[in-house]
Amino acid sequence: MAESLNIALAGLGTVGSGVVRLIETNAALIARRARRPIRIAAVSARDRGKDRGIDLAGYEWVDDPSELASRPDIDVVVEMVGGSDGPALALARNAIAGGKSFVTANKAMIAHHGLELAAAAEKAGVALKFEAAVAGGIPVIKGLSEGAAANAIERVYGILNGTCNYILSTMEDTGRDFADVLAEAQRLGYAEADPTFDVEGIDAAHKLSILAGIAFGARLRFDAVETTGISGVLAADIAQARALGYVIRLIGTAEIDRGGAAAGLFQRVRPHLVHCDHPLASVDGATNAVVAEGNFMGRLLFQGAGAGDGPTASAVVADIIDIARGEKGAAFSMPSHELEALEPAETGHRIGRAYIRFIVPDRPGVLAEITAAMRDAGVSIESFIQKGRGEAGGEVIVALVTHDGPEAAVRRALAILEGSDSLASPPLVMQILEG
Amino acid sequence: MAESLNIALAGLGTVGSGVVRLIETNAALIARRARRPIRIAAVSARDRGKDRGIDLAGYEWVDDPSELASRPDIDVVVEMVGGSDGPALALARNAIAGGKSFVTANKAMIAHHGLELAAAAEKAGVALKFEAAVAGGIPVIKGLSEGAAANAIERVYGILNGTCNYILSTMEDTGRDFADVLAEAQRLGYAEADPTFDVEGIDAAHKLSILAGIAFGARLRFDAVETTGISGVLAADIAQARALGYVIRLIGTAEIDRGGAAAGLFQRVRPHLVHCDHPLASVDGATNAVVAEGNFMGRLLFQGAGAGDGPTASAVVADIIDIARGEKGAAFSMPSHELEALEPAETGHRIGRAYIRFIVPDRPGVLAEITAAMRDAGVSIESFIQKGRGEAGGEVIVALVTHDGPEAAVRRALAILEGSDSLASPPLVMQILEG
Repeated sequence: MAESLNIALAGLGTVGSGVVRLIETNAALIARRARRPIRIAAVSARDRGKDRGIDLAGYEWVDDPSELASRPDIDVVVEMVGGSDGPALALARNAIAGGKSFVTANKAMIAHHGLELAAAAEKAGVALKFEAAVAGGIPVIKGLSEGAAANAIERVYGILNGTCNYILSTMEDTGRDFADVLAEAQRLGYAEADPTFDVEGIDAAHKLSILAGIAFGARLRFDAVETTGISGVLAADIAQARALGYVIRLIGTAEIDRGGAAAGLFQRVRPHLVHCDHPLASVDGATNAVVAEGNFMGRLLFQGAGAGDGPTASAVVADIIDIARGEKGAAFSMPSHELEALEPAETGHRIGRAYIRFIVPDRPGVLAEITAAMRDAGVSIESFIQKGRGEAGGEVIVALVTHDGPEAAVRRALAILEGSDSLASPPLVMQILEG
Repeated sequence: MAESLNIALAGLGTVGSGVVRLIETNAALIARRARRPIRIAAVSARDRGKDRGIDLAGYEWVDDPSELASRPDIDVVVEMVGGSDGPALALARNAIAGGKSFVTANKAMIAHHGLELAAAAEKAGVALKFEAAVAGGIPVIKGLSEGAAANAIERVYGILNGTCNYILSTMEDTGRDFADVLAEAQRLGYAEADPTFDVEGIDAAHKLSILAGIAFGARLRFDAVETTGISGVLAADIAQARALGYVIRLIGTAEIDRGGAAAGLFQRVRPHLVHCDHPLASVDGATNAVVAEGNFMGRLLFQGAGAGDGPTASAVVADIIDIARGEKGAAFSMPSHELEALEPAETGHRIGRAYIRFIVPDRPGVLAEITAAMRDAGVSIESFIQKGRGEAGGEVIVALVTHDGPEAAVRRALAILEGSDSLASPPLVMQILEG
């Protein structure tokens, strides 16, 4: 058998420990598939004494991870430290400059610095791989950059954050409120102590910007992802969506928008109403799913475990096996200098139906004011739901669904209503994804 | 830019014409992704004069496809002729021996001769690729052999034949009978004039044997796939399944069975009752879907268009792009000599619930005879459905669902009943796939 591929692991948290367990458990099978053994040549983490449930005695421990970047006996550095900058980025730069292939699960770092690292990897003739950065165990980076490579991808969208999907589907199953379900998710370890990155959609936006770059051959623009999280979704919204035949999911969606003056990159993370017949409607719990629509393949769906040590380790080691097989690929499916620089798309001309929900004082004239604003802005209302009295303060929930129309009209209507004392809090707008 | 990859197309039916259209339509994008242009150096088909809706004037026409195997200006031969043997196989053997990489959509040929061709390709140092042979536009070969490569795959199963799925889901939607829907599918071009390969499960069995080889690192055993088609499924079965909360789908399923004396390869294509909560239950029409369960990644689902010129061409050209990128892989995820020779698994000890349907004369004693046979064979009945009188002949339909139990017990019960004049025709057994 060929000589081993020697890897170094930086970071031994949940994912790093999972990678060790996987490589130990499936060693013989991996060697058959990779055509050479994969050997853990060194490991590094902050706390050597921590109990990780794995035996590290057989591996060389390195206190300073930056040392891994220059060791001649190491072929691949695997970064599972996390953070978009700091030690992870320093390690990435140094390892690539040192001629090591680099594998990471770090979506934030790739979303912010992926282009720089890809160019450096091309210059150094090494691989930069990050399958685990998007949708956990689902090989969607490979699916887009290789499986769908013959297609002009028209749209890519999906459920990219397991924590949000767990919270939304639990709210749906139990009728409970966001804050209540989030607190439970934190107790169960499904949500971080500081849940901002997840529930405000930032994590999904990181992933979406990576997918968009690959799908469209475009330079990554994480800064231009229009992002709204799920913290504003009420149990009442979920109940009303259900009555209309929809569920609510946090959807990241990206496409090349050719409806404006120039082609632009449209990227949005926002809660959507998803029709029950759409395959994403049945994606529950921490599951992730990505849909890609191509001009020849049609609609393709990938679905699986979006997080967790096992699935994430599966993706990390798939990257390592690719490298062992000599299949180094281009980080974003084409050389980084081929990626097109696209400006963020205008969105006002986008046509669709929307769900708009208001919290209003329970007094005469409020509905008239809302409907007048819609009329004056040119928004055509398909259905109108007034829910009964809220529990306190004499406020009621009013939701409406628009007919197909431009987003600009909805924005005009909301601008008319802005500051009105008929609104107790800012309205929530969710696009509707049909089956 | 690097020099072009020169390909020759043999066969210009629906798929071949689709490949020409795709390569023309997406040429610039493909060159960016493949890092070199893909050039159609020659085409060959039986009938030069046939109108295919594409302009072939710009391509060199070759009357004898066997000539493609030896032309020094060709890098890749793409076979879309079809048939497990004959000209397709001769071309495959000659092209590979001639040092050409070989891409095909031909599931029958790969199921029967894939091992021989893989060994020949390894010897010649060329690629053998067949993404389009399984599940049309869905990159499931790549998903299993690369994306899931770090996992011991525990089970792979799915909906692998679009014609059967179209017929079953149309029967479900309309309440019509198999023969009626098949005739319509033939008129619409969704089913062949001779539908045997599709409706009797042979096409799905070809695909399943290929998936099983890749998933389990096992030598292909198409001969050992236990195959039952959908021609015996009645509208009444679909109605009864629905009343129980299930739909009927033709499922191909494979796993390494370790329940017998020695590990064996279990491969079965058969209509199943699929619980409405299972992701495969919502796969309608000609869509295909494949589920793979791995020991680290958990459950992974791939879903998309299982047939048609566009999706199939997408898969064919993805293979060509891989070759252009220098990523030749191993045909079955590992060198062919590494594939394990596994005997077909025993199935009697397999535990599960089953739906068993009888057509019986409407007279006293019949139910007693059936239930006595079940009791004597040790089959425990969970629910029992007697449907009203049939339209003719005084026959009625009786269906039952068993509790979890070994398949051997069901077989014993049916053996007891075999030849009894209480059965008007052989019973239909379908396994139950839970959510």
